[in-house]
Amino acid sequence: MPSEPKVTSIDALPTSEAKWIEFQKISWTDQIGKPRIWESASRKTRGKSGVDAVAISTIIRHPSRPPSTIIILQYRPPVDAVCVEFPAGLVDENETPSDASTRELHEETGYKGKLRYISPTIVSDPGMSTANMQLATVEVVLGEGDKEPEQVLDDGEFIERVVVPLGELYERLLKYSEEGKLVDARLFHWAAGFHCAKTVL
Amino acid sequence: MPSEPKVTSIDALPTSEAKWIEFQKISWTDQIGKPRIWESASRKTRGKSGVDAVAISTIIRHPSRPPSTIIILQYRPPVDAVCVEFPAGLVDENETPSDASTRELHEETGYKGKLRYISPTIVSDPGMSTANMQLATVEVVLGEGDKEPEQVLDDGEFIERVVVPLGELYERLLKYSEEGKLVDARLFHWAAGFHCAKTVL
Repeated sequence: MPSEPKVTSIDALPTSEAKWIEFQKISWTDQIGKPRIWESASRKTRGKSGVDAVAISTIIRHPSRPPSTIIILQYRPPVDAVCVEFPAGLVDENETPSDASTRELHEETGYKGKLRYISPTIVSDPGMSTANMQLATVEVVLGEGDKEPEQVLDDGEFIERVVVPLGELYERLLKYSEEGKLVDARLFHWAAGFHCAKTVL
Repeated sequence: MPSEPKVTSIDALPTSEAKWIEFQKISWTDQIGKPRIWESASRKTRGKSGVDAVAISTIIRHPSRPPSTIIILQYRPPVDAVCVEFPAGLVDENETPSDASTRELHEETGYKGKLRYISPTIVSDPGMSTANMQLATVEVVLGEGDKEPEQVLDDGEFIERVVVPLGELYERLLKYSEEGKLVDARLFHWAAGFHCAKTVL
């Protein structure tokens, strides 16, 4: 029976010990020619594709259920909470972001789908880090009696997947938030855009 | 005449020099009780609200134009490119995120609006940083002959604002991306959710 993960201590990370991320001191010249400094964080894991990560907006089509998507719940040490996110992951060294999308969706949720679209490279938090990503749209077509597939998780990976009708996603995220879970900003923005279209159009 | 901003050098940032961000070495116990380490970046500027930043999804209502939103274009040193984002900013030390939303919208775009909604706290990139934010919805009601208001920018701030009909936002972001600008992942997700609702519903 898995127990509750928890943070036991937080210390300053010396530059020499950092394996996954690094700090950059960026010297730049601004629009009036003035030299300035910006501080930024980077992932050290970026591979040949030039893209750190992918996230997957899945559309599940089913003969008798409304169009749905899949979200995942997993504990994230930086914010010491269970986060609610689109399935996502880092792109491997020699992998394309497109291949990473269907691989990560399969591993984290068990579902196999067809990549319908992948976004241009977008930046996750450009005031603070170099982190970038692409957002994939993957379609999963189910038959009436299809069983929920098995996840393909690594040892030590604990990821809960939840299928949510698209029309209920926004309210579901607000409910998770009330329960103390932290919703990923990108997923929340996707749901807020969807919700806005329903109310404005 | 402002010139093109550019990065002149990138160096490793020693922990002792960092003023705006810091690195954390997080010791945590996972779901099977195993002690583990996670590396994370944090902003040092978080104030009393506990929220680093706000972004603003504006809805502009006009008697004879379609409902529109405002996006901003600004150079971001971490990614050495012009980024396309929702208006956004850090929450001041003693400010509420709600107050920061209308203040930042006014400063960056000149528009004054009414806060209609502010999201729960959401996390920007929880695999890599502690950064969090709230997404505000601000309504701006214009009359037929209203002129475009003046921005209230600090010296050395160069921000271009663009009013875009909601129904054209997604295509506009793809176009900016083709031109070499980098779209913020949160704004892109919002537009992708809006676009999905138009096509799926």
